[in-house]
Amino acid sequence: MAVYTEVSDEELQGFLAEYDLGEVLAFKGIAEGVENSNFLLTTEQGNFILTLYEKRVDPEDLPYFLGLMEHLAERGIACPLPVHAHDGRALRELAGRPAVIISFLEGLWPRRIHPEHCRELGAALARLHKAGSDFALQRRNALSVEAWRPLFQACADRAGEVKPGLMEELDTELAFLETNWPSDLPAGVIHADLFPDNVFFRHEKLTGLIDFYFACNDLLAYDLAICLNAWCFEPDGAFNATKARCLLRSYAGERAVSRAELEALPVLARGAAMRFLLTRLYDWLHHPPGAFVKPKDPLEYYKKLRFHAEVRSPGAYGLELA
Amino acid sequence: MAVYTEVSDEELQGFLAEYDLGEVLAFKGIAEGVENSNFLLTTEQGNFILTLYEKRVDPEDLPYFLGLMEHLAERGIACPLPVHAHDGRALRELAGRPAVIISFLEGLWPRRIHPEHCRELGAALARLHKAGSDFALQRRNALSVEAWRPLFQACADRAGEVKPGLMEELDTELAFLETNWPSDLPAGVIHADLFPDNVFFRHEKLTGLIDFYFACNDLLAYDLAICLNAWCFEPDGAFNATKARCLLRSYAGERAVSRAELEALPVLARGAAMRFLLTRLYDWLHHPPGAFVKPKDPLEYYKKLRFHAEVRSPGAYGLELA
Repeated sequence: MAVYTEVSDEELQGFLAEYDLGEVLAFKGIAEGVENSNFLLTTEQGNFILTLYEKRVDPEDLPYFLGLMEHLAERGIACPLPVHAHDGRALRELAGRPAVIISFLEGLWPRRIHPEHCRELGAALARLHKAGSDFALQRRNALSVEAWRPLFQACADRAGEVKPGLMEELDTELAFLETNWPSDLPAGVIHADLFPDNVFFRHEKLTGLIDFYFACNDLLAYDLAICLNAWCFEPDGAFNATKARCLLRSYAGERAVSRAELEALPVLARGAAMRFLLTRLYDWLHHPPGAFVKPKDPLEYYKKLRFHAEVRSPGAYGLELA
Repeated sequence: MAVYTEVSDEELQGFLAEYDLGEVLAFKGIAEGVENSNFLLTTEQGNFILTLYEKRVDPEDLPYFLGLMEHLAERGIACPLPVHAHDGRALRELAGRPAVIISFLEGLWPRRIHPEHCRELGAALARLHKAGSDFALQRRNALSVEAWRPLFQACADRAGEVKPGLMEELDTELAFLETNWPSDLPAGVIHADLFPDNVFFRHEKLTGLIDFYFACNDLLAYDLAICLNAWCFEPDGAFNATKARCLLRSYAGERAVSRAELEALPVLARGAAMRFLLTRLYDWLHHPPGAFVKPKDPLEYYKKLRFHAEVRSPGAYGLELA
């Protein structure tokens, strides 16, 4: 569920009067996305998405996110394009929240991942990284390695509720990651949350990338590590090396991956697993009893972390060192 | 939130192959409706709604609901029209659930009710009652007066958690309703759940009625009583007699309301309040801790019940006896 804010008829009419979208024909809350309120907005000009930014999003970050979508769209990346109002602004206010109308992308996110999806994803991710290289704004990754220990500490006294001994294990793993986290790899704009429900396809061809609200400047290969975790494990927890190979090879076909990046993949993938494990653990332990959103299972990412901790070389991911 | 069942790409493709809707362009869960899973389905032919019926709906009732929508639409009532597959069937199966594609109605449901909305609603409700008069199928109201005591008993031992003394008060009220419930009034097809989120408008003109999944054969004036409760109280609990007058007069302008029906309105409105109070109370006390749907406040309907119990004549609703 992702409608946290109700919008009254009068508020919506007043808001839309500032755009050239014609009359509103329909307005329905969308049950996807967990951070913001999203609505399908149908007007005489077609379908759009109206997003209200809820409290988890820092309004100061919005110019980065919206500017990035425009920057990428201009460079041919299929992503939502913010719609500008008469005053030229895309970022406005509705029902007391920052609000934006973005274009509606065609396509469906894949509920079941095929290797072909991973191949399409790899190429699209590389093109995103290249298209982002001349984006002028900067945003540091608020959920990178420095952020993990505070998040861990906010969960540590109750982590054992989820799995006995989890606190001790994560403590050791965190120390490893803090010591071994790479810093001298190619960096730039990353999506940082490219899960299957943020990638649309038609006939196994990628038609769009959405949800840029974790985008930031960080190591490019870290984005690849996030995708390895999100796309290349089966529902039963098994790592699918065929999918990983498809992802990495097609990425490398669009953007040369250095030896140092490849060698760093196991630690980056451990870190990516730690990042989602910790935010899920935090949400699991802290979600209010009456919350609408069912928290995601943190242990899914614990298992991924354990997998990568056993990996000794990037060959395990299907890409050989040159 | 109203997506209880996930639909895989393969399942959706296979399902849509049986229709003439062109290619699917988008498929998004809709955060409205609490009984079923609803999706926006965009195809080359435009927008549709795909509904999967969840366990609260008895599959044996579906031919009644779908047949009624077709019957009403044929008679000019603006309501969703089920789409038939190649085999002629509208009711099919998807992801292990009964499933149907229905037309997408334009319009927005009113977040804030104006008297003009009530005027439009009254006329539309009367037209619905008239159009339903020659519908061949029958479905008894599973949530009418006979159903209330079992529902009450399933809540009675914990009703005091919601409000001290509630159990005793409802027991007395139920006895009153069971004794005084009318039976010799005009009956026919009623919607039985015509809340504002089931009625769409454009520019204060009614454009459609949706969600016929409580429709049944019962007293026509009981439908009017349900609407009085759902449309004519302000958020602070005050009864708005102006809205009630608009609703009742415009209803009566389309379908003659008998003296007996008018005189029964106070008891029907008490009963309608009891029905929603009890189902909300049941959901409040029985919803699982991890449920997606936030239960609605049962005490809203307790206050409405108390209001109607004080009403001595239907003049309180703004319609004078002839």
